[in-house]
Amino acid sequence: MSSNYVIGLDFGSSSVRALLVDAANGRELAEQSFDYPHGRYGVILDKKNPNLARQHPADYLLGIKRTIRGVLNKALQTRGFSRDRVIGIGVDTTGSTPMPVDTAGTPLVMLPKFRNNRAALAWLWKDHTSHVEAAEITELGRMMRPHYMAKIGGRYSSEWFWAKILHCARTSPEVFEAAATWVELADFVPAQLTGNVRPEQIRRGVCAAGHKALFSHEWGGYADDEFLGKLDPRLVKVRGSLPSQVFNVSAMAGRLTSTWAAKLGLTENIPVAIGAFDCHLGAIGAGISDNTLVKIMGTSTCDIMVAPIDKGLTDIPGLCGIVPESVLPGYFGLEAGQSAVGDIFDWFVNRIAPGGHIGSYESLTRIAGKLKPGASGLLALDWHNGNRTVLVDQRLTGAILGLTLYSTPAEIYRSLIEATAFGSRVIMERLEEYGVRCERVINCGGIAAKNPLIMQIYADVLGRPISISRSSQTCALGSAIAAAVVSGVHSNFSEAIASMTGVQKQAYKPKPSHVAVYNRLYRQYRVLHDAFGAGEGEIAGVMKNLLIIRDEVRQ
Amino acid sequence: MSSNYVIGLDFGSSSVRALLVDAANGRELAEQSFDYPHGRYGVILDKKNPNLARQHPADYLLGIKRTIRGVLNKALQTRGFSRDRVIGIGVDTTGSTPMPVDTAGTPLVMLPKFRNNRAALAWLWKDHTSHVEAAEITELGRMMRPHYMAKIGGRYSSEWFWAKILHCARTSPEVFEAAATWVELADFVPAQLTGNVRPEQIRRGVCAAGHKALFSHEWGGYADDEFLGKLDPRLVKVRGSLPSQVFNVSAMAGRLTSTWAAKLGLTENIPVAIGAFDCHLGAIGAGISDNTLVKIMGTSTCDIMVAPIDKGLTDIPGLCGIVPESVLPGYFGLEAGQSAVGDIFDWFVNRIAPGGHIGSYESLTRIAGKLKPGASGLLALDWHNGNRTVLVDQRLTGAILGLTLYSTPAEIYRSLIEATAFGSRVIMERLEEYGVRCERVINCGGIAAKNPLIMQIYADVLGRPISISRSSQTCALGSAIAAAVVSGVHSNFSEAIASMTGVQKQAYKPKPSHVAVYNRLYRQYRVLHDAFGAGEGEIAGVMKNLLIIRDEVRQ
Repeated sequence: MSSNYVIGLDFGSSSVRALLVDAANGRELAEQSFDYPHGRYGVILDKKNPNLARQHPADYLLGIKRTIRGVLNKALQTRGFSRDRVIGIGVDTTGSTPMPVDTAGTPLVMLPKFRNNRAALAWLWKDHTSHVEAAEITELGRMMRPHYMAKIGGRYSSEWFWAKILHCARTSPEVFEAAATWVELADFVPAQLTGNVRPEQIRRGVCAAGHKALFSHEWGGYADDEFLGKLDPRLVKVRGSLPSQVFNVSAMAGRLTSTWAAKLGLTENIPVAIGAFDCHLGAIGAGISDNTLVKIMGTSTCDIMVAPIDKGLTDIPGLCGIVPESVLPGYFGLEAGQSAVGDIFDWFVNRIAPGGHIGSYESLTRIAGKLKPGASGLLALDWHNGNRTVLVDQRLTGAILGLTLYSTPAEIYRSLIEATAFGSRVIMERLEEYGVRCERVINCGGIAAKNPLIMQIYADVLGRPISISRSSQTCALGSAIAAAVVSGVHSNFSEAIASMTGVQKQAYKPKPSHVAVYNRLYRQYRVLHDAFGAGEGEIAGVMKNLLIIRDEVRQ
Repeated sequence: MSSNYVIGLDFGSSSVRALLVDAANGRELAEQSFDYPHGRYGVILDKKNPNLARQHPADYLLGIKRTIRGVLNKALQTRGFSRDRVIGIGVDTTGSTPMPVDTAGTPLVMLPKFRNNRAALAWLWKDHTSHVEAAEITELGRMMRPHYMAKIGGRYSSEWFWAKILHCARTSPEVFEAAATWVELADFVPAQLTGNVRPEQIRRGVCAAGHKALFSHEWGGYADDEFLGKLDPRLVKVRGSLPSQVFNVSAMAGRLTSTWAAKLGLTENIPVAIGAFDCHLGAIGAGISDNTLVKIMGTSTCDIMVAPIDKGLTDIPGLCGIVPESVLPGYFGLEAGQSAVGDIFDWFVNRIAPGGHIGSYESLTRIAGKLKPGASGLLALDWHNGNRTVLVDQRLTGAILGLTLYSTPAEIYRSLIEATAFGSRVIMERLEEYGVRCERVINCGGIAAKNPLIMQIYADVLGRPISISRSSQTCALGSAIAAAVVSGVHSNFSEAIASMTGVQKQAYKPKPSHVAVYNRLYRQYRVLHDAFGAGEGEIAGVMKNLLIIRDEVRQ
C-alpha cells in the first residue's frame, strides 16, 4: 500500500522551513529551509529606530517555492515516494505579523508606488514601533471594554495587529489609505496558495484573530466599531474589511491553485489548511492534549495548554490569551510565555563570562550540573527582557541575589537556569489556580533537545515529569498534521496527534530531594517576584526608577 | 643641620614593612618589607576548619630584625644619614590579633610544650573560629550591658579579643590555663622592643583595648568581672591580668633595649611609641584632622574620623567603634568600614568575567570610564562579604538589579564600583546624622593610588572633594609620626601631621551633573539597602533564607 504525504510550512523570523512527512505516522522524509533574502537575517531594520522590524512579502513567496521544491527533490530519493502522493499543505507563521494589501490582495510594497515605503512591508511580530498606540488601546480598553482586556491578560501589546495598524494610520497615512485590508502572515500564505487573495475571499484563522486582534464570539467578532472609532475613526474602515467568521486549523483555507501546483510540482486542488501561529501548531506537533503543558523553548519560551470548551473557563489574570479553538477544535487555546529564556543563557555565557574555556556552554553546563540545588546561595529574577506572563510588564529587569566573593560563573549560570524554571512555575501555578491542571510537560525547541541539565532542573522545579518531543521540527510537524486532517487522512486532531507525534523514550523525572529544596527556593523567588513585580511599596518602584533614570541619561 | 629620623613598623596580614623617614618633614628615605615565613602567605590555616587563621610570633620578631636592618642599609646610601640619627620607633599592626604568653612574656607557642599547638599561636584578626562565642557575648551584652554594645555598633565580632579567648578556654583549656595573659600584637611588638614583656609590665594601647576588648573609662576599664564571669568564670582571671590604665599613641611603650639596639644597629634607649591598629595610624599618616574622613581602601575598606572629646558625642548606631584617643589624643576615634571593596572588583574581573582582553582591569576601566552615571540602568548591593557598617551583619550578600540582555561586563563593573561608593555614603551620612561633619575625604591604600575612575565615582557619589594621600605607605608613616611625637621632634600630633604628611596635588572634585544623577540612584540604593538589610518584611528574610538553605544543602 502506498503512503500519502503532507507538507508543513513553518515561517520563522529569519527563514522558512518545509517538512515533508508521511501522513499516516508522521515519519519525516525531508526538510528544507530558506533564509529570507531581505534585510539583516531576513529582517528589515531602521538605523534611526531600533523598534522597527519589517519583512518583505516577496521573501515569503520565494520561500514557499524554494522549500517545497527542496523537500520534494530530497524525498524523491525515498523508495515509494512520488509527488502526486502529496495530498495537503499546512502553514504556521510568526505573528502578529500583519501587512497591508490592495483590493486585488497584492501586498502594497509589491506595487511600484510603495516599493520603497517601509510602512507597506509586513510588520514583523517583534516590531515595537507601536508602543504608544498599544498603551492607548490598553488604557481605552480598561475604561471602555474591560472584557476585551480580560481575555488578553490585561494589556494590549505593541506587537499586535491593531496597534500596528493604528501606528501606520498616524505615521504613514498614504499607506493606510491605500490598504484595502490588513492580512496576518498566517492568513496570507494559505490565501496565496489557494488563490483566495482578494480581501473578501481570504479565510482568516481564529488563532491570529483571537490572540492578537481582539476577536471573540462573546462580542460578535473583532473589536467593535465604537471602540475602534474612539481610538481613530479611520480604523472603522479596517474593521469593515474583516470577516465576521474565522476558522480553526481543521478547516481548509482553500485548494492549491493550478499555477502554484505547476510551480511547486504538486497536484492541483489539494487542500491547504487554515494557518495558525508557530507555537500553536508547535503544540500540536509536540503532542498536546488535556492537562499537558507544551513548552516551546528557544530564545524566549511559549507555553501552550488546552482546556475543553464544554467545561467552561474563567478569565485568567496575566495570561496573554485564552481563545476558543486557537490550538485544537473543541478546546480553549491558552497561551503564556517568558520574554527571554535561551537569550538569558546566551547573554551570560557569551557576553558576561566569555572566558574561552571557562565561559563555554559545555564547561559551564558540566560544572553547573555537579552543583546541588540551593548550594550556591544564589537566586535570580529572569526578567532581562521583561515579564510576559503573569506580570505582563516589559519594564521589569533581571536581578541576581546572594552573591559572595566565592560565587562562580557556573553557579551564576545555574541560578539563571533555575530563575527561568521558577518563572515557568509561576505560569503553571497560575493556570492550575484557575482550574487548568498540569499533569505533565512536553518540551520542544532547541534547548529541549540539547541541554539535559536544563530539562532536569525544570522537572525538579516544576515537580512534573518532562518529556521531550520526538520531532525537532514540532511547528512544521504541527502544520503537516493540520494538512493531514484537512485532507482527510485522520478524522480529527486527537487521532492525528496520536498517530503522527511522539516523545523521546527518555523522560526527566523530578528528583524528590531536589524538589524539596526547590520548593523552598521558589518561595524566596515568589517574595522577590511579588515585591519587585507586583508590589505597591518602594521596592516595586526600584526597577522602573532605574529605567527612568537610564532613559533620561541616555538621551 | 643634620636631620633626625624615625622608623615606622607596619605589621600586615602577610608581611611586615619598615619605613624610615625624616622626622621633620616625613620625607621617605627607605622601606623594606618581609614576608612571614610560616603558613600560606604568612597565615597558618587548618584544612578542616576554614575559619582558622593564625600566625607565628617568631615571624614578627624575625620581621623586626629583617626590615629595620633593611631600611638602615638602604638609607646609608643617602647623604647625611647615619644610624645614630634614628631617634624613635612607632608600631602599627593588624588586630584584634591576640596571643597567649606566659609569666615571662614568652608567647606560649615558643615554649617546647606548646610548639605544635595551634591555640598557642597568635590569633590573626580574620580568624573566625569564635563566631559562636561572639554571638554569645553579643546576646549577653544586649541583656546585661547594653552600654557596652552601644560603643561597638551593637554586635561583638568573632574577630575580637574576648571571643577568641573564650573559644580558647573552651576548646584548648591547656593553652588557656598556661596563659598568664593575652597580648594584642599591637602591644606585643613595643613590649618586645622595650623589654617590658612581663604581663604586669606591658603598656597597652587604647586603640586595641577600646575597639576590641570592651575597654572604656565610662565603666572603669575592661569589661567587668561580673559580665565576663557570666560568660565563663575562667575569664575573670584574664581580666585580672589586664591593667587599669591604657595609653594613646602619644605615650611611650618604653625605650629600646640594648639587646635589640645591638641586633638592629640602632642606639639603645630611643623611645618606642605605644602601638595601634594599622588603619588608625594610617589615618594619621594620611593627614587626618577634624571633619576629614580618611578611607584606607584595599580589599576591604576602613573609614576613620576623629571628633573633639570636649564637644562630646553620643553613641552612633551601627558604628563599630567610638573610642576616646584611639586615633589622636584629645579626640574620639571613630572607626567604620566596608567588608569588601577591592575584593568585589577582583571577584568580578578575575572570577566572573575573566575573558583575557575583555575582562582585564585596564580595558574594563577604560570602557566603564566612558559610561555616564545611570546610563546602564544597573544598581548593585556591595555586600559580597557582608556589611560591617552600618548594618553590622555578616549574613548579607551581594546583589545586582536592572540586568537586561544588553548589559555589558563594563556596566556591571561600574555598577559594582558605584555600589561600594553608595555603601561608603551610607557610612558618611550616618556620621553626619550624629554630628560628625565630613567636609573632605582623603583616600589612601592601593586602590586610591591606582584607579582614577574609582576616585572620581567616589567624589561624585559622596559629593565631596577627594584627595589622595601623598605617601603610599600611610600606615607605616603614621607609626613613624607617633615615633616623631614620642621622641619630641614635634610637640603634638597636629604639628607632626602638618609637617610630615600631605596629599597629591591632583584632587577629585564632584561633577555637578554626575552628583545629580547619583543622588537619584542613591535613593534607590537606600530602598534596597533598607529593605534587604534592615527591614521587617519578607524581603529582609530573603538573603538569610538563601544562606540557611545553602548551609543546610552543603552539609
